[in-house]
Amino acid sequence: MRIARFSIDGNVAFGAVEGEGTGDPAGLVLDIIKGIPYADFELSGTKVPLSKVRLLPPVLPNKVVGIGRNYAEHAAELGNEVPEVPVAFLKPTTSVIGSGDAIEYPSFSTEVHYEAELAVVIGRMCREVPRERVRDVILGYTCANDVTARDAQRREKQWSRAKGFDTSCPLGPWVETDLDPSDLAIQCTVNGEQRQLGRTSEMIRSIEDLVVHITEAMTLLPGDVILTGTPAGVGPLTVGDEVAVTIEGIGTLTNKVIKRG
Amino acid sequence: MRIARFSIDGNVAFGAVEGEGTGDPAGLVLDIIKGIPYADFELSGTKVPLSKVRLLPPVLPNKVVGIGRNYAEHAAELGNEVPEVPVAFLKPTTSVIGSGDAIEYPSFSTEVHYEAELAVVIGRMCREVPRERVRDVILGYTCANDVTARDAQRREKQWSRAKGFDTSCPLGPWVETDLDPSDLAIQCTVNGEQRQLGRTSEMIRSIEDLVVHITEAMTLLPGDVILTGTPAGVGPLTVGDEVAVTIEGIGTLTNKVIKRG
Repeated sequence: MRIARFSIDGNVAFGAVEGEGTGDPAGLVLDIIKGIPYADFELSGTKVPLSKVRLLPPVLPNKVVGIGRNYAEHAAELGNEVPEVPVAFLKPTTSVIGSGDAIEYPSFSTEVHYEAELAVVIGRMCREVPRERVRDVILGYTCANDVTARDAQRREKQWSRAKGFDTSCPLGPWVETDLDPSDLAIQCTVNGEQRQLGRTSEMIRSIEDLVVHITEAMTLLPGDVILTGTPAGVGPLTVGDEVAVTIEGIGTLTNKVIKRG
Repeated sequence: MRIARFSIDGNVAFGAVEGEGTGDPAGLVLDIIKGIPYADFELSGTKVPLSKVRLLPPVLPNKVVGIGRNYAEHAAELGNEVPEVPVAFLKPTTSVIGSGDAIEYPSFSTEVHYEAELAVVIGRMCREVPRERVRDVILGYTCANDVTARDAQRREKQWSRAKGFDTSCPLGPWVETDLDPSDLAIQCTVNGEQRQLGRTSEMIRSIEDLVVHITEAMTLLPGDVILTGTPAGVGPLTVGDEVAVTIEGIGTLTNKVIKRG
């Protein structure tokens, strides 16, 4: 099931996406969910066309944990070794936006990069998750863009500003709950031109590894998000660009880049 | 005014602390607040003795931004240079506990350190705050312990696990709203023995500098917290220890260290 979060006429709801298509709203319909997707819920049968709503970030995370250098070719392109321990960082909730929202170019950077990533959405509160139980704590998967101020990342030892500025965490368009994430094509385009193309099978650490590693230290809550790293091909965004992250079996997350107002 | 958050008989409330004293609840009384401290509020006149309540973290932050190496002597004791740009990192909300709560020693570390710090509590939503407006966005100040798994901090390039594990962010006992933070004694004791003693006037970057630096990148929300760095004297905690952070004009934050259950 594809679960979207959206607003219509000032009301916010979750809905199940019905129909075929990966991003173009034509033909897609939302069946409004009674309750929340982290517990038992039913479909209301009340349907609205996707073209009539504004998509919101599909989850409201308490925290977003990012993973750096999880694809060997990407580590190499920035001149980094594959790390011995996964590089885990945090993006604040104030950085989260949905598909169709604008990425605001921050004032402290002149080198903002896109990074297409598979995002794991947590479905239940958990800590110290054993490897064999990891699938049980996952609600589903969505597309993410781990937008990064590369110059600030180089200058500043910790990445909270470089990867945590407002609008630096586009998520969407929705959460796909029925998906095997082990070998999916992941693509980034800028203004329709392909810039990244990889497969999730190239990850150095698997989703199981990452959930074990993170929950060894911290409790994850329903709606929390793990960004699993980006394949090779990262590069700059400029004001006016339209950047799109497409993951096989999920859909397309699209954002325009604007000047911070 | 000293604003505490507490629970009594299963109810959670904010209250104004009345009476003299820095940590010992004897003689202190809470006047229950009608509303929340981030907006206009009144005191209800309904009073409960502090000895009858459980203190909770005095704020519910959306994010906690920590600052590394903001006291020159502390940077030197760990063999680090004073950084050219403030080192800003994030601690997740799942790490926050209150005074009297237990610090749980994490399984992935054998070298957990205390770090006594002055915490700034944000009172209103803000971004790109000009230096001269910084005082306007601050609700008040509390004590913090930026508990750190020093071995993991050395091993892992980003500090999210080392400084973000569950219970690694004790805050409290309450927020003092009427305080000049520029030259306060800050002390840490372990089992009653003094381990750290510094003054907030020794900070390399002032609170104004830090708020400007952080909000250049990210929006701060009411209840968000900035940890302003620790003076020299950091050292290990072991299971069974009682660690206390005392800041002049605020009070004492006390936590026991237990084995993670």
